[in-house]
Amino acid sequence: MALADISPSHPRTQTLPSNLASKFATPLHFYKNRRCSVLPPLRRTPGILCSIAPNQVQAPIAPATPADAEKRRECFGVFCTTYDLKADEKTKSWKSLINIAVSGAAGMISNHLLFKLASGEVFGSEQPIALKLLGSERSFQALEGVAMELEDSLYPLLREVNIGIDPYEVFQDAEWALLIGAKPRGPGMERAGLLDINGQIFAEQGKALNAVASRNVKVMVVGNPCNTNALICLKNAPDLPAKNFHALTRLDENRAKCQLALKAGVFYDKVSNMTIWGNHSTTQVPDFLNAKINGIPVKEVITDSKWLEEEFTERVQKRGGVLIQKWGRSSAASTAVSIVDAIRSLITPTPPGDWFSSGVYTNGNPYGIAEDIVFSMPCRSEGNGDYELVKEVTFDDYLWKRIKKTEAELLAEKRCVAHLTGEGNAFCDLPEDTMLPGEQ
Amino acid sequence: MALADISPSHPRTQTLPSNLASKFATPLHFYKNRRCSVLPPLRRTPGILCSIAPNQVQAPIAPATPADAEKRRECFGVFCTTYDLKADEKTKSWKSLINIAVSGAAGMISNHLLFKLASGEVFGSEQPIALKLLGSERSFQALEGVAMELEDSLYPLLREVNIGIDPYEVFQDAEWALLIGAKPRGPGMERAGLLDINGQIFAEQGKALNAVASRNVKVMVVGNPCNTNALICLKNAPDLPAKNFHALTRLDENRAKCQLALKAGVFYDKVSNMTIWGNHSTTQVPDFLNAKINGIPVKEVITDSKWLEEEFTERVQKRGGVLIQKWGRSSAASTAVSIVDAIRSLITPTPPGDWFSSGVYTNGNPYGIAEDIVFSMPCRSEGNGDYELVKEVTFDDYLWKRIKKTEAELLAEKRCVAHLTGEGNAFCDLPEDTMLPGEQ
Repeated sequence: MALADISPSHPRTQTLPSNLASKFATPLHFYKNRRCSVLPPLRRTPGILCSIAPNQVQAPIAPATPADAEKRRECFGVFCTTYDLKADEKTKSWKSLINIAVSGAAGMISNHLLFKLASGEVFGSEQPIALKLLGSERSFQALEGVAMELEDSLYPLLREVNIGIDPYEVFQDAEWALLIGAKPRGPGMERAGLLDINGQIFAEQGKALNAVASRNVKVMVVGNPCNTNALICLKNAPDLPAKNFHALTRLDENRAKCQLALKAGVFYDKVSNMTIWGNHSTTQVPDFLNAKINGIPVKEVITDSKWLEEEFTERVQKRGGVLIQKWGRSSAASTAVSIVDAIRSLITPTPPGDWFSSGVYTNGNPYGIAEDIVFSMPCRSEGNGDYELVKEVTFDDYLWKRIKKTEAELLAEKRCVAHLTGEGNAFCDLPEDTMLPGEQ
Repeated sequence: MALADISPSHPRTQTLPSNLASKFATPLHFYKNRRCSVLPPLRRTPGILCSIAPNQVQAPIAPATPADAEKRRECFGVFCTTYDLKADEKTKSWKSLINIAVSGAAGMISNHLLFKLASGEVFGSEQPIALKLLGSERSFQALEGVAMELEDSLYPLLREVNIGIDPYEVFQDAEWALLIGAKPRGPGMERAGLLDINGQIFAEQGKALNAVASRNVKVMVVGNPCNTNALICLKNAPDLPAKNFHALTRLDENRAKCQLALKAGVFYDKVSNMTIWGNHSTTQVPDFLNAKINGIPVKEVITDSKWLEEEFTERVQKRGGVLIQKWGRSSAASTAVSIVDAIRSLITPTPPGDWFSSGVYTNGNPYGIAEDIVFSMPCRSEGNGDYELVKEVTFDDYLWKRIKKTEAELLAEKRCVAHLTGEGNAFCDLPEDTMLPGEQ
């Protein structure tokens, strides 16, 4: 067992000769200040037991008492060493460390994403990061494996890695929470069942974020059904700004840009102003009315309206299914890329005239979309982590009718999870299975 | 089928209205100049049939006639669009496109590596790249899946993607060849058998590189047994500089740095001058005599000689096996990171006083290591793709004895593949199984 000698029961007590200790730029505290172990956490918050049956509505769950946070955090291996960025010539100009929590950290999407975060590709070459990895009891060994691979990657910017299975520990002081973990749909399970089972997870994680995360944490929900999971999450985190919660529709946006580029015979960097409206489901609306190619409205470049109206959306939505057929696995790599894109869109200024899509909380939206749901809309950012909705969009009957359909679905999903948002009895009447092909 | 409409049998004939065409910064040629299809290649070079039995030595294989290369290259999807980097304000300062060929492109290591290459993490933010992906007939659909995920990732620097199963097509004009693909070891197969079966692949790929690659192509062999595969490859490419061939020992170097950091209780960026000597196998020698921690010789920092001599190497070597146990899969992510590190070490100047390890051709080496094998040694680069061996290293009896052991193994492996290097009859007397745990 490679790491046996750093468990607390076998403390490493080696000390440096005094004549050597003074030569070190970074003092070696040998874990005086931080616990160093890879033990599984001792405590797990009790599972939330509820179902969507209206007669089994659950009482709101009280947030767990935030106990001594420092004690509960479990650092991993080489990331338990102390360091002083300001004392080192190479790192003294760096920004302050930021905490990034990732759930589903032992899964395939994370296996791509974590290395992108650690490399500096997302937050830049002078932004040191701490990764807080949330897994499950079942995945804990895999989580250790991921942390070991992060150790072996020697990323200078990756300064801390913690692993755990309790969101109240792992989300401590998180400035970003990337919520990827979700239960896959079991055999015969309908969207309503998935909403319930995953809704419980996101209710718990919302409460944990509310209790222990940074007061300005940005939350990106990837686990499906991501819009309504994000709604559940923000409803369970009343002390955090609802505006900070996002549901990932960036992969849909990227795929839509690619399909328009393919049809127009241009490179994909020529496609801009692409909005995904609504739900991350088959009711989603990739908007070809407002999108542009080389700055020109798509409909003037691609004059094949039949293709735009009948094939384009289907192509975007079927992409995941085609990929599973071809590759035998779901599209973890490009999903991770789209998460990177979504984060970077919030921390870098949006290019003039352009925008990006994100599933955000509808609170005073300028379009007339129902309030109090999480709906993908066009956003612009000054690069400070915040965003504004874009006003300069147009609608036609075709677009608006489709927006109303995805809105209706999200309102139905919301009724379906009322027991998880503290809004009374759940009532589930989802008419059809709208899961995107290739997603679980 | 998402891409059906771009196959040659259904050419897209849409043209732009003339009033619009002039508005486009990048002219839309609609594939006039380049073929656009996702058809499997029509031709495959015949498999090389031979075995290691001395009485079945194969005659040297004549390189395939380089037919019309342009015709044989198969571009993929959106990467078939024409573009003019110089015509676009955003890209006109960029460098010239480079061709990067990757074998085993549908595998897990590539699934991490390709996205790193495309993101700019490896070659920088102003270096556009073309990816030439080599797969097999069996993996061709998966290869299409990978190319589709690259499309959906919208990386601005990734300008061309070609997929194919014939190295004579895929390696055309390659400036880098990252040879990851290799057959895994079958049940009961010994290292000798693996050497033969994979040696044939690398002999074929060497001939293909010799015939069609850039005359200064840099070749990085990852597929195991990588040192001897690299030797076979360079022997089959007599027109290319032998110095340009590398066998990847960087993951071993990275793991060794991490283990020293863990033992010393320092962050891994404090460990430098780490050499892996010899073979990428259990005879490899992670060199703690010349390595430094905070600029001080390791042996002065870690005074536990027993640990250094008896545990350290084992920890480095067992890492892959522990990872498989924990994570259930081999360490694709950190292997891809180490390939990135290996490339970057050749294209950026080595920090003063430091070095990196690479398995390179022993031709006039200053250490007295046997000539004419591929042996991991300490290298320094000016960042021009080339390297020099480091002279300022010391040896003691312990280190030298171990170097001689890994040298003996590589000489035995060389005798074992003589039929593939054009050096007569193979004679195989490998004494033991020295595959690294967790590798195939």
